[in-house]
Amino acid sequence: MSSGAIFVWELIGTAVLILLGAGVVANTVLKNSLGNSGGWLLINFGWGFAVFAGASIAAPSGAHLNPAVTLGLATAGKLDWALVPVYFGAQLLGAFIGAVLCWLAYKLQFDTHDDPGGTLGIFSTGPTVDNKFWNTVTEVIGTFVLVLWILLSPSAKAAAEGVPQFGNSALGYAAVMFVVVGIGASLGGPTGYAINPARDLGPRIAYALLPIKGKGGANWGYSWVPVVGPLIGAVLAGLLSLALA
Amino acid sequence: MSSGAIFVWELIGTAVLILLGAGVVANTVLKNSLGNSGGWLLINFGWGFAVFAGASIAAPSGAHLNPAVTLGLATAGKLDWALVPVYFGAQLLGAFIGAVLCWLAYKLQFDTHDDPGGTLGIFSTGPTVDNKFWNTVTEVIGTFVLVLWILLSPSAKAAAEGVPQFGNSALGYAAVMFVVVGIGASLGGPTGYAINPARDLGPRIAYALLPIKGKGGANWGYSWVPVVGPLIGAVLAGLLSLALA
Amino acid sequence: MSSGAIFVWELIGTAVLILLGAGVVANTVLKNSLGNSGGWLLINFGWGFAVFAGASIAAPSGAHLNPAVTLGLATAGKLDWALVPVYFGAQLLGAFIGAVLCWLAYKLQFDTHDDPGGTLGIFSTGPTVDNKFWNTVTEVIGTFVLVLWILLSPSAKAAAEGVPQFGNSALGYAAVMFVVVGIGASLGGPTGYAINPARDLGPRIAYALLPIKGKGGANWGYSWVPVVGPLIGAVLAGLLSLALA
Amino acid sequence: MSSGAIFVWELIGTAVLILLGAGVVANTVLKNSLGNSGGWLLINFGWGFAVFAGASIAAPSGAHLNPAVTLGLATAGKLDWALVPVYFGAQLLGAFIGAVLCWLAYKLQFDTHDDPGGTLGIFSTGPTVDNKFWNTVTEVIGTFVLVLWILLSPSAKAAAEGVPQFGNSALGYAAVMFVVVGIGASLGGPTGYAINPARDLGPRIAYALLPIKGKGGANWGYSWVPVVGPLIGAVLAGLLSLALA
Repeated sequence: MSSGAIFVWELIGTAVLILLGAGVVANTVLKNSLGNSGGWLLINFGWGFAVFAGASIAAPSGAHLNPAVTLGLATAGKLDWALVPVYFGAQLLGAFIGAVLCWLAYKLQFDTHDDPGGTLGIFSTGPTVDNKFWNTVTEVIGTFVLVLWILLSPSAKAAAEGVPQFGNSALGYAAVMFVVVGIGASLGGPTGYAINPARDLGPRIAYALLPIKGKGGANWGYSWVPVVGPLIGAVLAGLLSLALA
Repeated sequence: MSSGAIFVWELIGTAVLILLGAGVVANTVLKNSLGNSGGWLLINFGWGFAVFAGASIAAPSGAHLNPAVTLGLATAGKLDWALVPVYFGAQLLGAFIGAVLCWLAYKLQFDTHDDPGGTLGIFSTGPTVDNKFWNTVTEVIGTFVLVLWILLSPSAKAAAEGVPQFGNSALGYAAVMFVVVGIGASLGGPTGYAINPARDLGPRIAYALLPIKGKGGANWGYSWVPVVGPLIGAVLAGLLSLALA
Repeated sequence: MSSGAIFVWELIGTAVLILLGAGVVANTVLKNSLGNSGGWLLINFGWGFAVFAGASIAAPSGAHLNPAVTLGLATAGKLDWALVPVYFGAQLLGAFIGAVLCWLAYKLQFDTHDDPGGTLGIFSTGPTVDNKFWNTVTEVIGTFVLVLWILLSPSAKAAAEGVPQFGNSALGYAAVMFVVVGIGASLGGPTGYAINPARDLGPRIAYALLPIKGKGGANWGYSWVPVVGPLIGAVLAGLLSLALA
Repeated sequence: MSSGAIFVWELIGTAVLILLGAGVVANTVLKNSLGNSGGWLLINFGWGFAVFAGASIAAPSGAHLNPAVTLGLATAGKLDWALVPVYFGAQLLGAFIGAVLCWLAYKLQFDTHDDPGGTLGIFSTGPTVDNKFWNTVTEVIGTFVLVLWILLSPSAKAAAEGVPQFGNSALGYAAVMFVVVGIGASLGGPTGYAINPARDLGPRIAYALLPIKGKGGANWGYSWVPVVGPLIGAVLAGLLSLALA
């Protein structure tokens, strides 16, 4: 597959991922939304199904949708390092576009929200207790589980490498959806589980640029944690998978 | 398959979809129902399983159950335009019948509800903030994701075209169920996610005609939004799928 | 397969179904249980996974676990009428045993419950609004959807007839689990969705016989509704499936 | 497969199981966590997805992750008794490591919790009503269902024996995940469903050893119940499966 085609599929898949992922948080947070106060399990399932939808669509490019997955595959020797920047660029741009679409879908709810300064959490993650070292540890552990699972599970490995399963790659993404819901339910509590640098950085840029009514700051001081933590976790998982091979 | 057979299978499948879909809202809204105040995730899963049940049954006709899906498939060149009216008619009539059955199943709960004038929401969607333009945008985006996924995902595409998967089309509909739960969880907050003109219009007609105790108006002024929005989203998804082919 | 083997597998499968199904209600209702007040979706998923576990185990006998399923299959000409009493007997006895096991698992919680007279709902269903005719209608509709789906869905049909799917009948029961969760979420509100005569009658007999601390009456006046309603729904679904064949 | 390889895969799989399983309880219990008060269904799904993730990773060794599963397979004649200590040791050590990782992921939340003396429940199970005999009965019944299902279900049996399914063992673990969620929803109320001696004992040892801020006692008086109960349940299930063979 050409670099251009990889770029297009990853971009579309990541845009769908973030549209739905940011969407479920918007639905839960914004006052005039039917899912307001819907609870943590709603958010976990929302992000899980977002991964499922985005990954099914991006199956032709292997459906990474996440720089940590791309880096883990490259570390494990399963992806040409020359393709890494192509994936990274598409994922970041796709995440930005998905965040813009989410804002459009919830435009009226953003405009009528009671606490417009607190809407950053719809776009990007943040810690419940601020401590950069331990926040990074949490993101490392969560991403380590995700990438290790992708590298070791036969189903996800085949899907990530673009191999059709049962003549049907779509149901194969149910497995990664289960794991993403599980990581959110289990390890998402301290930092909101970025476990994906593009998922956090793309929407943060969108938040900074969009004319969202009454918005607050984009918390750039924290923004490197959900980038660096997932990348460290991915490298560790890649190295462990090499040791186990 | 003959037009008559398509009509019958789509009608039965859409009736089951709306019986269960309107049912989960009735269960949540009506005072004397065990699922009262069950929350947004219950509604999302209820609609998702409604799609699963209806689509499994309507597998012989491709299980569109939704004029937006039919229009998207036709736009993408995957369905003969001459069949479009057959699908539309069956879907609308099936949705009407499903709504009637839901009313019968919850007859006692409708008769004893505290706020009978507010029961339209069990049948048809409505916005939390009234603005026809932005409400339409929300419906366009939600339906765009659904139809794009159907057109691009190998699993859903095969199911929509009536191709058995693994010798078993039923489990293939798990994939579309995941996507429908996800769209509801993520993009259903502003307008209640019609994402299906028949799902909204058929039950609205039923609400207007049925002798529901103490019922209020059917809000016809809004009724074109959940018809036009999904159809626009479907055409956009069909065109994008052609551009990606 | 011999009648004796059918009896054993149906008995074990139905016992597991009721142990887990009554269990999730006990978990939600009883004061000293960790799932107390867990909500309707917990109950729906609990019953769905109960069907999944019981059906996987009873795969050798076709995993009916429900006299309405047995009757629907016989009506549709897919089961020898001579086997119907074997299935019915095993299902009723299995349901009784499952209810006893549930009581043993929750013995301490039953002994320390605040409202011991109101524990019948853990074992058997009851209406939120008492009207035998409409209660029966609700049970007819819910069971009609279940049995129609089983008769028409390729996956469930194969499973019900004991045909292994993908060399693996267990995952096939995921489909029927989805439908059972869906019927509970959507149509369970008015009567607690027996949709299975054995599921209601077996535990009701157990409730009447067991030395449950402070228990109330078994509400025999209502007990025919969750038997007759499901059987009517099953026959209607069987007849429709014949008309569609 | 060599004993050493079995040890490594079981250790990693059980560590992932406990990291995610203890994690979802931490997320629900700890004050400064986003999933605080998330409810029983969140805990049930969290443990289910924890099993799914751990089992997918440990597929090469059969993915027991649980001494009760190992003992049940040996009792049923499906596992060489000489391997039992290898599995037991790996599972216990893996569970300990998973609990340590969970503590690291939630370090800040443990440090800032309002009731640090009550954090044992994040690591190990305990009864809602203290009565060792009946608590044991509950654990026997829950584990009996799990192990019986594993021994009788074609899908789980193949997975436990390391046989790839559909060329893809990962999706096969969806079935055991459904059963684990179901047992938690239905039978977890009285004792918190250990149903796995390593799941309870490994984290209890970790709790006793870790420098958790303000921690209370490890309740060693109860610690034998979630070891002995599951092992009894496993033997009973193994014997029943032999009788049914």
